[in-house]
Parts: sequence; C-alpha cells; structure tokens
Amino acid sequence: MSPADFSQMCPKYEKAFEVLGRRWTGLVLRALMDSPRRFSEITAYVPGLSDRLLSERLQELEATGLVERRVHPEQRPVLVEYRLTEKGHALRPALEALQKWADTWVSAEVAAR
Amino acid sequence: MSPADFSQMCPKYEKAFEVLGRRWTGLVLRALMDSPRRFSEITAYVPGLSDRLLSERLQELEATGLVERRVHPEQRPVLVEYRLTEKGHALRPALEALQKWADTWVSAEVAAR
Repeated sequence: MSPADFSQMCPKYEKAFEVLGRRWTGLVLRALMDSPRRFSEITAYVPGLSDRLLSERLQELEATGLVERRVHPEQRPVLVEYRLTEKGHALRPALEALQKWADTWVSAEVAAR
Repeated sequence: MSPADFSQMCPKYEKAFEVLGRRWTGLVLRALMDSPRRFSEITAYVPGLSDRLLSERLQELEATGLVERRVHPEQRPVLVEYRLTEKGHALRPALEALQKWADTWVSAEVAAR
C-alpha cells in the first residue's frame, strides 16, 4: 500500500469517522466481525454497553449500511440477528491494524483499569 | 498479518477505542500525521472543529501519550507546536486502512453533504 496523502483533509475520511468516532461503535463492529449475533449476545460481548445505547448504535449502523438486521420468523421464539454487510466486513483490515497497534502500545496495566 | 481473533473482546482494543472513539480525535491525528502543526493550523485543517474542543482533544491526546506539545521559546512570537509521539505515529497503518476503506465505500455524494 502506498502511503496515503494526509497533507489535507479528505471528506470521505471525515465521513468514516462520523461513524467510527462514536463511543461503542468500534466495539459493536468487533462483536459482529466473526459471526452474526443476537442483541443480547452483543451486550454480553461488549462490557458496559447498555441496551438503550446498543439499540441506538445498531440503528445508526443500519442507516449507514454497515449492519443488517435479519428476522428468522420460522424460529420460535422468533430469532433476530444482526450481521455485518459487505461494507461492514470491509472494515476488518482497519480493525486488525488497530488491534495490532493496541497490542504493541496499550500496556496491560492500563487496559486492566 | 494473520487474522486477528475477534471471537471475544480485548481490553487493549477497548482502551484504544476510548481514545479513537471520540468525535474529532481521528481527524486531529490525521492533521498531525505528516508534520507538526500549530494550534491554528490544526483548526484550519479540520473543518468545523472549535478552539475549545481542539484544546480538550489535545489535552486528552497528550495524556494518553499520542501527542506532545513543544514550545520553541527562542522564536518571536513564541512558537508552540503539536506533534505525534512514536506511539501516535504508529497509528498510521490503521488510519491508512480506514482511508482505503473510505475511498472504496463512502460515496462522493454522501461525503459532500
């Protein structure tokens, strides 16, 4: 990958951070990266995330086309799952790069606080 | 890079998003990625960012060791610059991956809004 030109702002980059630069969003995306999950599975995955805020975040992520909500009416009780779209899955390299950065630069003591 | 394990949450990743998952932070880091800048140069680079919020964000970024503030007292008027630390510069691959994602997935029309 050739170095990106960061000498000036890019409106697409700004737009990307309107979504990612919100509390919880990066954690919710991670929760869905490997498999679809039910609402309660996402709250179990993300420590401290309330139902109300998860609901808000999922609506935003649906509106921006990163997540889709699937209802399986044949199941009893009805199964509702959230899954990443192709656009959402395409964030994987960015989240992996952040994980790699965190592994190197975030100390274990700080993360434990 | 082998695929990261996203099957469960990682406290270091959570910590990374405590910083990055804040409005403006990803844009301020981009502003400093290629060179140190003065306060007024950062506000000029980031559309819509107020002095008050930039001041807050810079203090957070200094506290987490991503940015350092350098005073050059020999200059008149005194020059104050903000620059990324090594830890801050190490975010470059993640920001580049996000730029690449944005180039592919954020449409020009949406970004122009």
